[in-house]
Amino acid sequence: MFEQLGLIGCGLMGGSFALAMKRAGLVKRVVGYSKSPSTTERARQMGVIDVEAPSALLAVSGADIVMLAIPVSATEASFKAIRHLVGPKTLIMDVGSTKRDVVDAARRTLKEHLGCFVPCHPITGKEMSGVESADVDLYAGKQVIITPIERTLTAQLQKASEVWTALGCHVLKMSPQAHDAAYAAVSHLPHLIAFALINSIAGQENGMNYMSLAGPGFRDFTRIAASDPKMWRDILLANREELLTQSQMFHKALEKLEDLISRSNGDALETQIGQASDIRANWRIASHPHKR
Amino acid sequence: MFEQLGLIGCGLMGGSFALAMKRAGLVKRVVGYSKSPSTTERARQMGVIDVEAPSALLAVSGADIVMLAIPVSATEASFKAIRHLVGPKTLIMDVGSTKRDVVDAARRTLKEHLGCFVPCHPITGKEMSGVESADVDLYAGKQVIITPIERTLTAQLQKASEVWTALGCHVLKMSPQAHDAAYAAVSHLPHLIAFALINSIAGQENGMNYMSLAGPGFRDFTRIAASDPKMWRDILLANREELLTQSQMFHKALEKLEDLISRSNGDALETQIGQASDIRANWRIASHPHKR
Repeated sequence: MFEQLGLIGCGLMGGSFALAMKRAGLVKRVVGYSKSPSTTERARQMGVIDVEAPSALLAVSGADIVMLAIPVSATEASFKAIRHLVGPKTLIMDVGSTKRDVVDAARRTLKEHLGCFVPCHPITGKEMSGVESADVDLYAGKQVIITPIERTLTAQLQKASEVWTALGCHVLKMSPQAHDAAYAAVSHLPHLIAFALINSIAGQENGMNYMSLAGPGFRDFTRIAASDPKMWRDILLANREELLTQSQMFHKALEKLEDLISRSNGDALETQIGQASDIRANWRIASHPHKR
Repeated sequence: MFEQLGLIGCGLMGGSFALAMKRAGLVKRVVGYSKSPSTTERARQMGVIDVEAPSALLAVSGADIVMLAIPVSATEASFKAIRHLVGPKTLIMDVGSTKRDVVDAARRTLKEHLGCFVPCHPITGKEMSGVESADVDLYAGKQVIITPIERTLTAQLQKASEVWTALGCHVLKMSPQAHDAAYAAVSHLPHLIAFALINSIAGQENGMNYMSLAGPGFRDFTRIAASDPKMWRDILLANREELLTQSQMFHKALEKLEDLISRSNGDALETQIGQASDIRANWRIASHPHKR
């Protein structure tokens, strides 16, 4: 049980975390700060936070648990803003979709408090952003990747695992490097492709007309293209090397299929599609088997 | 009200059509044929069809409405197999995802019965195939594109529209050419991309491990990669020119984003993502507003 959650960023991810912590009885009081005062005010009106803080530092003042739920590029500035009020027992977590850049920012700024920071990435989200989309069930049954470094304190790491588990999450630990390599392939590249597809179609003379004819396959395939531009700009830039490597491999895989199509090689094309179809049909989303 | 539906192909699309026709009280008897006798038998056991036919020709014998629900490459052979029992008032429809090749096959084979054929493409489906996945609600509330040609008979065209409308569909008419151009962009290309992405990731040393970490974004983005290989081989080959044109435009749109990422041009990247995000957030799936 925590006394006070200092929430930096009261949007979809942060707001949902506060709601889930409250419902689980894990925190007595949530003090929130957002860059935009109207967001902080709205979060309080909605009951997502209890108290509005006028700065990140004041949100952290007196907090025994701190959650950063902001675009990853804002991490370093936030660490700088709060580090003077971090105590030795404070647990600091984030929910950023990239981990190497966040860990690097922590190393540069948190100094003797670096061990208090447990880098986290919950594998959940919505294409809508903002506190209005906050959802008490956003984390339930989902995976959370924790990427501790050699200086992470055991006590904080243990507490972080317990918090996520209590919210119904399945916790996995890996290195920041392994995390960023994996999510370049299965998250960052799909987003990049979805943005490119929409821009490609919309840029055509009849593109908007074509899209008006699209069905459920297009709906699901492009859902992630509606994601928040600033957040995704940050993620794609923060993980650019792994992402561009993945993207080059994808171009080649696409060209291989195009080549079979242009040469009307139906047998090889069916084999290639069959391989993809089998793999996807047997794939299951990772989730906690015993919780929602 | 029809006396007898001759169903060629008792899989997901055909089986669902038969179930919907029966529930709507639009047909008295369904005689079904599938290439695989075990599928036909299973369809009868499930009550999807009433009578098993040993050949496509015998399924059509006595039918006043005929539905072809087969991979598009099998269309020509099926037309040849049934044309001797098509009467002047028979309504023949298909559900193929490409329309120019199907219309060409009809021109080559149906001769004086060409006017009885109304080419259709219902914008619906599932990633699972087979009669076991047949769903009485598959067509309800969905768009159906009808692509008549100059020789299509008015009476059959009218009847086809009435059938789909009675099943709760929203009917749109366009040329086979316009259809194939639009669906190359919003359906065939997304499938091609989804197959390529799975193959690209699965071909990497840690690829299967990466996929085990993927979340809801990946799940929705790759759902269509599990589609039926034979059916999609046919579609991608049948519409190859439009598809390859779309794919080239997509490569360029992707390269444009990659270039901004590699040059760390955050502002331009955010603008490009923002454009895609706005367009997708404002997009709505076309459906019949007054029916399910």
